[in-house]
Amino acid sequence: MSLARSPLAPAAFPDLASIDGVGMVTTNTGLRYRGRPDLLLMRFCEGTTAAGVFTRSKTRSAAVDWCRQALAAGAGRARGLVVNSGNANAFTGARGQEGVRITIEAASRILGCRPEEIFHASTGTIGVPLDGPRIASCLEAMAPELSSEASWEQAATAISTTDTYPKGAGAETSIDGKTVRISGIAKGSGMIAPDMATMLSFVVTDAAIAPDVLEALLREGADRSFNSITVDSDTSTSDTLLVFATGKAGNAPVTDLEDPRLDGFRAALFSVLLDLAHQVVRDGEGATRFVTVTVTGATSNDAAKRIALAIANSPLVKTAIAGADANWGRVVMAVGKSGEEADRDRLRIAIGGVVISENGEAVEGYDETPVAEHMKGQEILIEADIGLGDGRATVWTCDLTHAYIDINADYRT
Amino acid sequence: MSLARSPLAPAAFPDLASIDGVGMVTTNTGLRYRGRPDLLLMRFCEGTTAAGVFTRSKTRSAAVDWCRQALAAGAGRARGLVVNSGNANAFTGARGQEGVRITIEAASRILGCRPEEIFHASTGTIGVPLDGPRIASCLEAMAPELSSEASWEQAATAISTTDTYPKGAGAETSIDGKTVRISGIAKGSGMIAPDMATMLSFVVTDAAIAPDVLEALLREGADRSFNSITVDSDTSTSDTLLVFATGKAGNAPVTDLEDPRLDGFRAALFSVLLDLAHQVVRDGEGATRFVTVTVTGATSNDAAKRIALAIANSPLVKTAIAGADANWGRVVMAVGKSGEEADRDRLRIAIGGVVISENGEAVEGYDETPVAEHMKGQEILIEADIGLGDGRATVWTCDLTHAYIDINADYRT
Repeated sequence: MSLARSPLAPAAFPDLASIDGVGMVTTNTGLRYRGRPDLLLMRFCEGTTAAGVFTRSKTRSAAVDWCRQALAAGAGRARGLVVNSGNANAFTGARGQEGVRITIEAASRILGCRPEEIFHASTGTIGVPLDGPRIASCLEAMAPELSSEASWEQAATAISTTDTYPKGAGAETSIDGKTVRISGIAKGSGMIAPDMATMLSFVVTDAAIAPDVLEALLREGADRSFNSITVDSDTSTSDTLLVFATGKAGNAPVTDLEDPRLDGFRAALFSVLLDLAHQVVRDGEGATRFVTVTVTGATSNDAAKRIALAIANSPLVKTAIAGADANWGRVVMAVGKSGEEADRDRLRIAIGGVVISENGEAVEGYDETPVAEHMKGQEILIEADIGLGDGRATVWTCDLTHAYIDINADYRT
Repeated sequence: MSLARSPLAPAAFPDLASIDGVGMVTTNTGLRYRGRPDLLLMRFCEGTTAAGVFTRSKTRSAAVDWCRQALAAGAGRARGLVVNSGNANAFTGARGQEGVRITIEAASRILGCRPEEIFHASTGTIGVPLDGPRIASCLEAMAPELSSEASWEQAATAISTTDTYPKGAGAETSIDGKTVRISGIAKGSGMIAPDMATMLSFVVTDAAIAPDVLEALLREGADRSFNSITVDSDTSTSDTLLVFATGKAGNAPVTDLEDPRLDGFRAALFSVLLDLAHQVVRDGEGATRFVTVTVTGATSNDAAKRIALAIANSPLVKTAIAGADANWGRVVMAVGKSGEEADRDRLRIAIGGVVISENGEAVEGYDETPVAEHMKGQEILIEADIGLGDGRATVWTCDLTHAYIDINADYRT
């Protein structure tokens, strides 16, 4: 089953900067896919720092387990990254762990570093143990090519599964007057049985940033980006977001999260993460509309986010959007079911910037015409003001269409 | 848009007993539907007790607000019930509350009782205030017909909206050697924009049961039935389950929840509630398969229920079932995302009674043939054992099909 490029996809893959201190190479392992790269090897120079955030699933994959251990054992230092697509190596027991061990051992030998400086992610079919020896022999063959660097688009392609387009984003800023570059790739969230929804993202910068500062920045940025998007509320066993900082830009290392020199970098990193996260939503299975849900006036930012996610995850809201139906009653319903504090009679709902209801009822003389027009577009804005406090949050999602069912139900038939 | 009878519907409406002490009449109000009853009036004899459980939504309808107040103010006594379909009177502000006030005032005058002895539920379009004077004049016209009783099937039809069949269930038991009858009706969970998912259910018995005992029984029974089903995880503004006990069976009133005379009645009431709840799932929009999800071995019953609901609400699991795909990896994923304690390497998954995976990986020599056969049927069984404790729960749901999207997205086009 081959999928047409999402109608919400960007026009083209962006022109991303090479990052000093990074080598990249891709290949085809022959494990599942033909005619495209499915294995990515990245090499980082000495002194590279790393930080990661991972799925909260209790049934996470062996590769996720490894990355969490490696970050702790290696004190946030990185020398390499291995990502394969086509096999998630999830729910594969001891044999899956053995596949990871062989992969890490091979990469650390090839790159001449400690095992805990190698990071690893897998995406694809679950329940099938990863063929470690096959990956190891591919890595051996790839190593000599690390100098003649692969393109970011090839790298983004190598980590993708059922994505309908490769995803990349970049930014440039400065620290200490030194130009700093950020380039990143992502995959998600196409799912074909028995594959699973997985979001992977890898971001590389030449800034010099201490591991604990990098981790704090990543955690905050992930909350505002990858943790603020939803396609179908399902959480993968393998979600992985890693950032690597080579330090080659030449700035004096940033060791304090409050350092004002970070301001530009923080904004640039967040913009890259948000761009990548949006691209994942725009490739949601069957998506035809990109939906922004903003909640204000909640009792806290966390409450606002839970309400926004209740709206964004509601199948009734998402099918209404697919049908271009300005069904504000379903937004009311979703606010009510979120479990967060809400007062029916203070709630204000707007779609496409037009206030539809306030004080517990439809506004006097509500004219649906402009809202119906907005619903026909590809970019939908839903706003709910709870009227109780200052909490606010924005999340992004897509509509729920027939194509979602096609992709996820009819795949084997 | 008229919907074909669900393929999962029972063969026919059951033959339900009349309940001594109850009068019923239905009519057509002309407010929305034509050629079918859309207003139900029930009269209860003096001494009737009542209990209710309601939606937990923070944006609940005016009728739900009224019932909660009435139960408290009237100390669990009931003399009448008014249910209309076609207009949910939800999110209608002060004008909606005025519609409720007029309805209650008319019914209490007609039935010669206090307002707080009248209960009321509405289902249908939201955002449009209920036309109280119209309901009141219909109630006036219906009152003389209360003696020539309407059938349970007529009553079930009067409270339905987009249901593809009327829903009823009954049971007979005894207390103190006196025959006790239970008859009940339900509606849900068809949704057509801008209507909302609503479950309404009304159960009547001739047993003599004190209000506090009735409420405790209902709460327990609702947890095992209506609160254990899910079609699409969305919660209505209007969900209402009420039980009324006329006391005409002649048993000495039961005033203690631990009274052993209750044993048969408890079982009979729970079976009626479960039957009605299952019928709601079997009429889920677009449902083609009825799915039972049983979770055992969780750290508590509550944890088991949350895990079971995570499986039952997962769009990926539900679309796989629609496609008759034995996709156990998605069950693993749903367990992992539930937020409850789970250990990947202790998890056991079975479908159709066939163990597919245990100890964190697929069983040796797993043969999908019998499971694939099971998935083609209309009754699907998914079992997950968490391997950590004694907590268990069962929930019921249906598959997620193209027809769900048709019903909920394409309605206006």
